[in-house]
Amino acid sequence: MIDQQRVKDLAKQFASNTIDIRRHIHANPELSYEEYKTAKFVAEQLRTMGIEPQEGVAGTGLVAIIEGKNPEKYTVALRADMDALPITEQNDIPYKSTNEGVMHACGHDVHTSCVLGAARILSELKDSFEGSIKLIFQPGEEKNPGGASLMIKDGALENPKPGAMLGQHVMPFIETGKVGFREGMYMASADEIYLTVKGKGGHAALPDRSVDPIVIAAQIITALQQVISRNADPKSPTVLTFGTIHGGHAQNIIPDEVKISGTFRALDENWRFKAHELITRAATGIAEGLGGSCEVFIDVGYPFLSNDVDTTRLARKAAEDYLGKENVQDLDLWLGAEDFAYYSHVVPSCFYRLGTGNEEKGTTNGVHTPNFNIDEDAIEVGIGLMAWIALQQLEAHRNSR
Amino acid sequence: MIDQQRVKDLAKQFASNTIDIRRHIHANPELSYEEYKTAKFVAEQLRTMGIEPQEGVAGTGLVAIIEGKNPEKYTVALRADMDALPITEQNDIPYKSTNEGVMHACGHDVHTSCVLGAARILSELKDSFEGSIKLIFQPGEEKNPGGASLMIKDGALENPKPGAMLGQHVMPFIETGKVGFREGMYMASADEIYLTVKGKGGHAALPDRSVDPIVIAAQIITALQQVISRNADPKSPTVLTFGTIHGGHAQNIIPDEVKISGTFRALDENWRFKAHELITRAATGIAEGLGGSCEVFIDVGYPFLSNDVDTTRLARKAAEDYLGKENVQDLDLWLGAEDFAYYSHVVPSCFYRLGTGNEEKGTTNGVHTPNFNIDEDAIEVGIGLMAWIALQQLEAHRNSR
Amino acid sequence: MIDQQRVKDLAKQFASNTIDIRRHIHANPELSYEEYKTAKFVAEQLRTMGIEPQEGVAGTGLVAIIEGKNPEKYTVALRADMDALPITEQNDIPYKSTNEGVMHACGHDVHTSCVLGAARILSELKDSFEGSIKLIFQPGEEKNPGGASLMIKDGALENPKPGAMLGQHVMPFIETGKVGFREGMYMASADEIYLTVKGKGGHAALPDRSVDPIVIAAQIITALQQVISRNADPKSPTVLTFGTIHGGHAQNIIPDEVKISGTFRALDENWRFKAHELITRAATGIAEGLGGSCEVFIDVGYPFLSNDVDTTRLARKAAEDYLGKENVQDLDLWLGAEDFAYYSHVVPSCFYRLGTGNEEKGTTNGVHTPNFNIDEDAIEVGIGLMAWIALQQLEAHRNSR
Amino acid sequence: MIDQQRVKDLAKQFASNTIDIRRHIHANPELSYEEYKTAKFVAEQLRTMGIEPQEGVAGTGLVAIIEGKNPEKYTVALRADMDALPITEQNDIPYKSTNEGVMHACGHDVHTSCVLGAARILSELKDSFEGSIKLIFQPGEEKNPGGASLMIKDGALENPKPGAMLGQHVMPFIETGKVGFREGMYMASADEIYLTVKGKGGHAALPDRSVDPIVIAAQIITALQQVISRNADPKSPTVLTFGTIHGGHAQNIIPDEVKISGTFRALDENWRFKAHELITRAATGIAEGLGGSCEVFIDVGYPFLSNDVDTTRLARKAAEDYLGKENVQDLDLWLGAEDFAYYSHVVPSCFYRLGTGNEEKGTTNGVHTPNFNIDEDAIEVGIGLMAWIALQQLEAHRNSR
Repeated sequence: MIDQQRVKDLAKQFASNTIDIRRHIHANPELSYEEYKTAKFVAEQLRTMGIEPQEGVAGTGLVAIIEGKNPEKYTVALRADMDALPITEQNDIPYKSTNEGVMHACGHDVHTSCVLGAARILSELKDSFEGSIKLIFQPGEEKNPGGASLMIKDGALENPKPGAMLGQHVMPFIETGKVGFREGMYMASADEIYLTVKGKGGHAALPDRSVDPIVIAAQIITALQQVISRNADPKSPTVLTFGTIHGGHAQNIIPDEVKISGTFRALDENWRFKAHELITRAATGIAEGLGGSCEVFIDVGYPFLSNDVDTTRLARKAAEDYLGKENVQDLDLWLGAEDFAYYSHVVPSCFYRLGTGNEEKGTTNGVHTPNFNIDEDAIEVGIGLMAWIALQQLEAHRNSR
Repeated sequence: MIDQQRVKDLAKQFASNTIDIRRHIHANPELSYEEYKTAKFVAEQLRTMGIEPQEGVAGTGLVAIIEGKNPEKYTVALRADMDALPITEQNDIPYKSTNEGVMHACGHDVHTSCVLGAARILSELKDSFEGSIKLIFQPGEEKNPGGASLMIKDGALENPKPGAMLGQHVMPFIETGKVGFREGMYMASADEIYLTVKGKGGHAALPDRSVDPIVIAAQIITALQQVISRNADPKSPTVLTFGTIHGGHAQNIIPDEVKISGTFRALDENWRFKAHELITRAATGIAEGLGGSCEVFIDVGYPFLSNDVDTTRLARKAAEDYLGKENVQDLDLWLGAEDFAYYSHVVPSCFYRLGTGNEEKGTTNGVHTPNFNIDEDAIEVGIGLMAWIALQQLEAHRNSR
Repeated sequence: MIDQQRVKDLAKQFASNTIDIRRHIHANPELSYEEYKTAKFVAEQLRTMGIEPQEGVAGTGLVAIIEGKNPEKYTVALRADMDALPITEQNDIPYKSTNEGVMHACGHDVHTSCVLGAARILSELKDSFEGSIKLIFQPGEEKNPGGASLMIKDGALENPKPGAMLGQHVMPFIETGKVGFREGMYMASADEIYLTVKGKGGHAALPDRSVDPIVIAAQIITALQQVISRNADPKSPTVLTFGTIHGGHAQNIIPDEVKISGTFRALDENWRFKAHELITRAATGIAEGLGGSCEVFIDVGYPFLSNDVDTTRLARKAAEDYLGKENVQDLDLWLGAEDFAYYSHVVPSCFYRLGTGNEEKGTTNGVHTPNFNIDEDAIEVGIGLMAWIALQQLEAHRNSR
Repeated sequence: MIDQQRVKDLAKQFASNTIDIRRHIHANPELSYEEYKTAKFVAEQLRTMGIEPQEGVAGTGLVAIIEGKNPEKYTVALRADMDALPITEQNDIPYKSTNEGVMHACGHDVHTSCVLGAARILSELKDSFEGSIKLIFQPGEEKNPGGASLMIKDGALENPKPGAMLGQHVMPFIETGKVGFREGMYMASADEIYLTVKGKGGHAALPDRSVDPIVIAAQIITALQQVISRNADPKSPTVLTFGTIHGGHAQNIIPDEVKISGTFRALDENWRFKAHELITRAATGIAEGLGGSCEVFIDVGYPFLSNDVDTTRLARKAAEDYLGKENVQDLDLWLGAEDFAYYSHVVPSCFYRLGTGNEEKGTTNGVHTPNFNIDEDAIEVGIGLMAWIALQQLEAHRNSR
């Protein structure tokens, strides 16, 4: 059994290098499914540890294995996502994005560098643990269909299939040095809803010769809220939000169509797909009832993310040992979406949050904002803790068999 | 050609008797299609003038003829409606309704007695005019399908077919002594709309296991207003009013259904029946789109009433001569309904208003209210004017051939 | 410590008498706050056990104490509700309601007789336990403001204040012999919402001279669903159901007003009262925006019911011991309401469900239906289990101090 | 009195030159209130007739007088509008717009050249008629506040004030050689309605922390249709059309606001301004009732256009004499808007339609479309008829005094 202090020492030792790696990735962000340079850089970094990755998984993804003793015994997977967002960075930092209009505003630079840092620690310790560590660097977390689903299709969870999987995500609303866990249901499924309400355009003063898509759209929007308020089980959290509505070019011309887009969030797969049917039926029924029509396109996104109870309890216990109980907190259920969910439906998983907030350093802005940044002190915690949790998962399975 | 003064003298002479008749009918009101005693009384009155009516037309209706010289030359029809309303009279008068809960609140007692009074004058003068006067006493003006439509089906406008037809209706908002006319489109078609919105009842706390007909009904009501605001030609006056909505028995139980009733008024027969389709399509489309259903029953009522231009100009001219120009006024278009409309679609017709309002006598309450009454001074005007207009119609046709 | 078998033996012994009591109460149901005869009968029954109750608490309620050894040490309260519902019984049974139109359709006859039966057992054992048992027989569970709230106001939970409280409720959907428990949040707050939408009545064909309350009501109903779908935290179960809507008397008259009633269910007291404000603001804002007005009356009902975790775990453990683990099941969160909630906000409480369903005996109809009945085999379980749980609560506190 | 044939001969003589003028203007279109070159060109043309215009009226407008004998006796005004539209011409013609993106798609090139052509005829005849002809060339018919209102403010209708005013507008739906007239109410008032529905943006999955302006906008749009269907007198044609709705940038972000624009048309000035109040009250009441707000900006546009009965009868009679009865038709009431309306509220006016449609020549496309064009044979009719009607107006007043 590995000594915790040894992990902490290695984390301290590798922190600075990991920060350099993170800054390099941060300065060179790439959009979803276009992570070519990032992937190449990750591969180079792995080779400096003597790890030869499998490249080109699901396009720009990579998979690598660190074998301990008795490597077939059990495998724990560590996941990193590599893509950035179409946001123009507003931080005034030396390692600011050099790819104008693209930014690591969701911390994937941190996720990727921390998995590399944890890998460095675990490589160093590979003679001291039994089992294997699988490293998964995926593309496209931010964009349907989700890199995770492509990685799975491309075999990333086979040969060997992990017994547990860990995902670590930055959280500016948790203080640096602290982490958060939640057993069971944690995040929502998310589907994009696109409605095109079609009428028949014409002169504003001749409504009887047109079919007004704006009033039909208004009826549909109003009615669809009832899918939430009347058709959802009140005990099953559900959200239908329309984020955009656009139609028409002139105040005095009835347009031909109105386009509406939104998102549907749920925590129950049966209800989710039934709701898709109800949304479609209501939108088309109302539009046709009023003489128009409605095209409904539902871009089915990530499923709900449920943390495996045993895996998560074990991870939390490891975190409490490593950071102290006072630095481990509960996470609320959150109707956001995350493509790690795909892994969680295949492998017992734990997706947890790494605190990166520091008011003095100004790192408490939300993700997906142009001035999001992290307190880099979190990196040492992130690499050491991830390695330690992985080791504890291996250890637990060594004992249990 | 008959001297106007002669008509005025006869009107004065017969006014008192006509008032007695009116009071008798007023005190003995009968509901639509149940005008048995009234019809018998009318028949008796006609016989006192030596006129033998055809009884039992369309149930309780009567038709009678007063023949002048050369009776086949031309016929003018005078119409009276005989039915009363299910209203409890609140007037404190000696001839108050003795049929509790039934009241002549729309002046049909006046219409019937005035046609009798006019007939008395015309009978007196029958050696002085050419052509015939047809008296039509109809049942059921207040209730679908309308006694007028039944009278027509039963042949009241045949043998002979009138060349012109007159309908005289009380109007409390016009002063006694005055009358009102309108050429062309005057009143609306009126159809009753009955919607039964069906859902699936259940416990208030389990909306997902029910289909809530109340929210569906709300969506339908809201959407149907657009049949008026978006589908009607703005230049074609149209009204859709729902007068009742009823559903549910307990605040905490989702009911099975909601019942809604309303009325649809229009002035264009093509649009009217297209609107019925639009109403049906919208109500059923929305209900089904939201998981319920909607039964739509449209009780097609009276068509629009359009006064024949020539007939009405002639009648108005006669009225101006008889009462003075200052006592003849224009009527506004009015989206109320009247089954005289049926006659107006078959015979060139004039439906005009007899002023019965007198503030001092308190006879300015609207029709269909429990304290409606008339200024009986209007009776002398009503019988004399109607006879005079009829005579002028006959005269015009004598000249025109 | 009392032997479980002893309790089971007493339960078997007293079951038949308890069934007689239950049948007597069933045959003589009384409406909420009118439980005069029932209260008198309960008092008599208590006296047969040598227990002198305090009568007239909160009107028709009773409180009684069974003192064990060292009676001040700890008190466990057992609650029974005594009122019946305004439902006409349709069961064909010898002990059918003799009070036409009133029926024990929610099992309060069972609750009352079971507390009496448990009291009989506990009286028998009073020399064997430490602490006291407080018996609470309350009026008016079915009707605002809830007898529980009145009992509390009238001091039922003082002198002594119980350390734990138990409520046992019939459940036709659980098989006889089984029971159900739920830790933490179990049932919802329930408030009655009454809206009177006021417009200005008038003739259907003159909408511009009226203010149509039916279309305003439709807008309000539609908009209020958004209080649920847009204003509620999606993670906080909430329901707003309107169960009735009534307005208007004739299809062709715009009525003066529409009356709507509904129920609001929630599990969070802050949100609940904020929602009341949002409902009021939306209903009045929309009505006034459309030229009418809306009177909103919210009859604040019972709060949420949350089962104390420690009390409930202890109760469940006792039930598992008494009935076997296989006969104890989890209960789902349920947005129904129950005035036991008031006690749960003052005393650590456990409200659990007694299975009374038996398909062969036809006792699986829902409560509040005219043919609801129980499998009387449940009575022996109900009295023994309640006594046993009470004893375990006392025992736990004997040990813990 | 001038011989009709003389006018027809002059029209024939000047048609070709007028067509050249029209083509020059067509090829050089200018947007509203920027008609600098057009105005200069019109001035030059007037000077070739020996008429010295007053330039710079209301910016780019011009006023000129042709004095006949006894010039103070009576004045008839002829109106031309000079601005073009922001439309890219798609006609393949030698005189196609050379100002990319701007096009005379509403025939103002024809109106201006026809008034010039009529002026040429009338100049030629000035020794033969009594009274004066006032020529009014205005800017900005297509854009609020309307050049007509500015011309009036700048004194174009003073010194002398015309006794009658004529406006001639192209009409592709009337065959070349024919014209259309309507007495009384002809066109609608038109006001632009701008709504900004303000909520509070936020994450799609946190609706309770946002105020969703899209659902509020939907409620407002739905409710505002009732201003038409429930608040307008059904007999008073009214339209409220929203032509645009725009809000939001991402499907998963609740936006801060939604912008809606529309047009309100009516034929009654009292109702028009009352409706503005009702629209404002409803939009703000609903938005505030739902926790947001709504800014309402109503850009008050042109009033209704009513053709003076006497002026129009005289004009129509003149047209029937000039073109033959079979070539003069009735125009329907039309809820379009036209700033000539301003003149019609000050001077007895006649706004009539000049047929320019010819199926074979492909000139039946609607105005305001990129391939609108006229049959230039209409020019000869347009100049001769306008001159003839003007002469008949003068003649009528010569006789009447």
